[in-house]
Amino acid sequence: MRFFSDNAAPAHPAVLDAMLAANAVDTAYDGDALSKAMDGAFSDLFETPVTAMWVATGTAANALALAAMVPPHGGVLCHRDAHIQNDEGGAPEFYTHGAKLMLVDGVGAKLDPAGVAAAADAIANDVHRVQPHALSITNATEYGLVYTPDEVAALGEVAKARGWGLHMDGARFGNAMAHVGCSPADMTWRAGVDVLSFGFVKNGGMSAEALVFFDQTLAADTLRRRKRAGHLLSKGRFAAAQILALVEQDRWLDTARAANAGAAALGAAAGARALHAVQANELFLRATPEEAAALRRQGFDFYDWAAGEVRMVVSWSQPADEIAALAAAIAAL
Amino acid sequence: MRFFSDNAAPAHPAVLDAMLAANAVDTAYDGDALSKAMDGAFSDLFETPVTAMWVATGTAANALALAAMVPPHGGVLCHRDAHIQNDEGGAPEFYTHGAKLMLVDGVGAKLDPAGVAAAADAIANDVHRVQPHALSITNATEYGLVYTPDEVAALGEVAKARGWGLHMDGARFGNAMAHVGCSPADMTWRAGVDVLSFGFVKNGGMSAEALVFFDQTLAADTLRRRKRAGHLLSKGRFAAAQILALVEQDRWLDTARAANAGAAALGAAAGARALHAVQANELFLRATPEEAAALRRQGFDFYDWAAGEVRMVVSWSQPADEIAALAAAIAAL
Amino acid sequence: MRFFSDNAAPAHPAVLDAMLAANAVDTAYDGDALSKAMDGAFSDLFETPVTAMWVATGTAANALALAAMVPPHGGVLCHRDAHIQNDEGGAPEFYTHGAKLMLVDGVGAKLDPAGVAAAADAIANDVHRVQPHALSITNATEYGLVYTPDEVAALGEVAKARGWGLHMDGARFGNAMAHVGCSPADMTWRAGVDVLSFGFVKNGGMSAEALVFFDQTLAADTLRRRKRAGHLLSKGRFAAAQILALVEQDRWLDTARAANAGAAALGAAAGARALHAVQANELFLRATPEEAAALRRQGFDFYDWAAGEVRMVVSWSQPADEIAALAAAIAAL
Amino acid sequence: MRFFSDNAAPAHPAVLDAMLAANAVDTAYDGDALSKAMDGAFSDLFETPVTAMWVATGTAANALALAAMVPPHGGVLCHRDAHIQNDEGGAPEFYTHGAKLMLVDGVGAKLDPAGVAAAADAIANDVHRVQPHALSITNATEYGLVYTPDEVAALGEVAKARGWGLHMDGARFGNAMAHVGCSPADMTWRAGVDVLSFGFVKNGGMSAEALVFFDQTLAADTLRRRKRAGHLLSKGRFAAAQILALVEQDRWLDTARAANAGAAALGAAAGARALHAVQANELFLRATPEEAAALRRQGFDFYDWAAGEVRMVVSWSQPADEIAALAAAIAAL
Repeated sequence: MRFFSDNAAPAHPAVLDAMLAANAVDTAYDGDALSKAMDGAFSDLFETPVTAMWVATGTAANALALAAMVPPHGGVLCHRDAHIQNDEGGAPEFYTHGAKLMLVDGVGAKLDPAGVAAAADAIANDVHRVQPHALSITNATEYGLVYTPDEVAALGEVAKARGWGLHMDGARFGNAMAHVGCSPADMTWRAGVDVLSFGFVKNGGMSAEALVFFDQTLAADTLRRRKRAGHLLSKGRFAAAQILALVEQDRWLDTARAANAGAAALGAAAGARALHAVQANELFLRATPEEAAALRRQGFDFYDWAAGEVRMVVSWSQPADEIAALAAAIAAL
Repeated sequence: MRFFSDNAAPAHPAVLDAMLAANAVDTAYDGDALSKAMDGAFSDLFETPVTAMWVATGTAANALALAAMVPPHGGVLCHRDAHIQNDEGGAPEFYTHGAKLMLVDGVGAKLDPAGVAAAADAIANDVHRVQPHALSITNATEYGLVYTPDEVAALGEVAKARGWGLHMDGARFGNAMAHVGCSPADMTWRAGVDVLSFGFVKNGGMSAEALVFFDQTLAADTLRRRKRAGHLLSKGRFAAAQILALVEQDRWLDTARAANAGAAALGAAAGARALHAVQANELFLRATPEEAAALRRQGFDFYDWAAGEVRMVVSWSQPADEIAALAAAIAAL
Repeated sequence: MRFFSDNAAPAHPAVLDAMLAANAVDTAYDGDALSKAMDGAFSDLFETPVTAMWVATGTAANALALAAMVPPHGGVLCHRDAHIQNDEGGAPEFYTHGAKLMLVDGVGAKLDPAGVAAAADAIANDVHRVQPHALSITNATEYGLVYTPDEVAALGEVAKARGWGLHMDGARFGNAMAHVGCSPADMTWRAGVDVLSFGFVKNGGMSAEALVFFDQTLAADTLRRRKRAGHLLSKGRFAAAQILALVEQDRWLDTARAANAGAAALGAAAGARALHAVQANELFLRATPEEAAALRRQGFDFYDWAAGEVRMVVSWSQPADEIAALAAAIAAL
Repeated sequence: MRFFSDNAAPAHPAVLDAMLAANAVDTAYDGDALSKAMDGAFSDLFETPVTAMWVATGTAANALALAAMVPPHGGVLCHRDAHIQNDEGGAPEFYTHGAKLMLVDGVGAKLDPAGVAAAADAIANDVHRVQPHALSITNATEYGLVYTPDEVAALGEVAKARGWGLHMDGARFGNAMAHVGCSPADMTWRAGVDVLSFGFVKNGGMSAEALVFFDQTLAADTLRRRKRAGHLLSKGRFAAAQILALVEQDRWLDTARAANAGAAALGAAAGARALHAVQANELFLRATPEEAAALRRQGFDFYDWAAGEVRMVVSWSQPADEIAALAAAIAAL
């Protein structure tokens, strides 16, 4: 029973069907009909003209987004526990050609305007100090917390006032949206987001994420950067097919709701053992090594996050009986 | 009738089947059973221990291979018409952090030892000049010619004598192998190749290429570089499944043979109009704009290569009637 | 008797005096009075507002200029024999983060509009091909030829029409100006030059070159790039002092005229043995290895340029008797 | 009365004399007799064979040192307040092509083995996390504290045990050595240091720092990196002359002792207002804005370090009356 990572989950049947349908001959790269439909599909979803492109990984999406906003001699403000800082092998530094990640604290991997402003104010504006050019937030955060549109907008105001771009790492954007229930527009561009890494792989996809540019002036160079990074797939139609299948009929929200509901059940069982509110599809649980071992003996697979802490992730297709069994086991600790 | 690019072709049914089979839950990244089977499958195929890893594009494979062999202050000798020079949007420079591609001439995009040695000898070995650290050849070449194992070995000797790495861009490695009929080992490591970009996408795959390290000391850092480039897929099992399906039962040779045979038929029809010998799956045809337009009016799609030259590519699944029709049309020019 | 390189020459007495005068305490980096005087001095010289900054080497000047105009995924058109391509150890690629140098032919290392346009026209404007973003010319060229203002302007028109920046590598700008005798403005910004590497070290300086931005919008980021490259000297006043001393009283033209005159004398002696017209301070001489050895036995030091070709450079302070002796020796060959 | 920065100070008379003497014609770059004497001079000083090269700034020295030890996908452990993190405009990231600086805490900008080990232990050794490849310490630190040889050796053991390189930023190495009074060998290679940035500019030099490789295997590539960064000066003899003049007769220790003595006098006057022990040539003083303003009205120039803190730096040539005056003013606060 895998609660290790939502990356272990299967792809959604609609995704598979769409890929099989895309197997007909069409032209190469992103010249095919499906790839060309991306802009329209996301413009509809976000109720504003956007440029949307597929990439193969969230790491590539994030790194391309940052490279679009930050020069090599600039910096990115982000949370100390951000995925871009800790889990991408230095991809932001690679794609930006050496921009500096500037780490800010905040509870549950969430940033707030005061903390961000204080971090920025500590940086003298002279040629000796790297200057911030963008703010990157993760929604849902690395600890499964969700920014509300108002919270994003407050950060967006800080960014705009200082001339920074605002990037949202939405590896679990679906989970965040399923929790809040607002419009995608309110969570993003209306709150000041310039570029969104819109994750699908953790949410029913196979190998395609969407990079959505609300600031469309950043898109043209990114198409060149994507090619230069080896991310212009030769048969892009199979990537577009995945994404479009999940956007259609709001399947991405259905899958996210299912995962969130499972995590909520685990959170309820965990009670005070939960280290963070369970708002998305992750539970961070206080557990001794002995308790963790006991759970594993019962057949549950999960991640040792830190000393005395484990992470359990519910995927979109997690069987109900697995969730019930794990909830019971947690409650019995 | 698309003769525009082998990237327009569908994926092989065995590939699709393997991907559907891979949809069961397994762990993330490259920890799954299929990804772990890559080293063994390619070690068997090449009759020597190798490290093999999937990447999403041939551009990424080539750029990672070069970055493994060439420092940022070094250079790569390659043909003036090489894909890495002209068609990858600067990916080699990106991955190597600015190494210089050093262009060498040769008929049909083939290099020969004398030409390579002369180019290298013209570079003074001082700190002012960028020094070559690798030689990169493409087999089959960008004009559809095939290096024999002896030809590769002669270049391998030059490389070894000068301390360079030898990279083979095998975007159409299957087509080259199908033409020569030798063992994969003879074409590669026995001839001095250190790293092979082994292409599958143009040959029945969907979105996975193999990067094969005969010099296994180069592999560990490349795993980190792959992650840093955003090419460590979250659900890598779907990439491994594609590659393994084509390696099994030598399907990759069957698909390549089919494509080569179709191109040979076109070449026979072209006669003296063929600009290069047709050894792989491409025909470069002398054609006036009027002739090209006439072919297009008959429903054939192809690429305008240069003034008075068009390129026609036969894919692994090209219908026999399309090939026959195009051959007839060419013969009638 | 050194005719090996103008870098072997001493610094001008006025330069030394200015440096000694600068030894009084002043503030660090480029906040001192001398560094602050650079913009004004060069704005006066060029009859237009410019931003001017010192750097320690011509390589740094050139690389910073290119980085200001060309993104990492872009390219620079330059002559095949350009210093930036052959003699800077890959500095342009380092500073631009991997932009590609695109090599163009031309007699005597000079480019002409037709050749440049043809090279550019051969580059398809798609995402697979690196696109040129700047044109870089060297005046005087690597073979000692000088572009006239009209020739520069013709290239400037090509650059502007295509949206490229125009860089002039003026490592021997003084020698070029001394030959043509026009105003510095006519040779540069009036002819479309955006950034000039204005060389002083080969022309009486010690360790300071000027980077002059006619397009002042490029300067602010360059100040950050200069710092990031370790080229913001801690005691910048000693660099500014050198440059200002040579600009004052047009000393830079006096030194260049002296060197040019010496080279002209050598050129006259060489006659048909001269491989290029002697317009600046260099003579490229046809000489067999035996002839070269004979000259060396007479005490002359010079550079073996290529098979059967040697290079002789006259410096600003070359003693008249050395020049006369070498001229006689050449004439006697 | 400037206590703003030791970069504001003049060059030592012996430095000026040596530069004038170097003005005789010699060959270019680092082929001259003075540049060639660097290895020997520093090998003598450190009692072991080293490779030593000049660079123009401490930023370049540090960045080259780190690039020699850390791959682009690696990291450098350093203090949160290290100069390489805060004051070099991102130079380490530029030269290393994006390696990550990993910040560690410690009192007075000093690191200790336990803190370093704990920071490293928190980094999981998988492909998702950037791995440390080097440790960089500053001696004297950014707050004017000095590591003893034993303290360095303890950090050196941690570095060696984990396979990291050890870099010492010695922008104020002279001040550290003057404080400790040990042999240069004990402070560096005997304590595990692989590369030293040996600062001269703050200590009587004009525009030359030494980069000293105890691990000589790192030097050859660094010569190429130096050229590629535009730091191979055309007339290198003027840089070598400065350094050699200060090494001769241990002038570098004399100048450092003078500066340290001045700072000690200020520290004695400051008493409990001193934020850190005064071991080198810097005093960090607790002072309200009003107190700082009062001092400035008396003619003292210094740096506002942080809220309620100012920094006063004594240079090698600081007049005794200025020191006495400032000491009296501080005591009178």
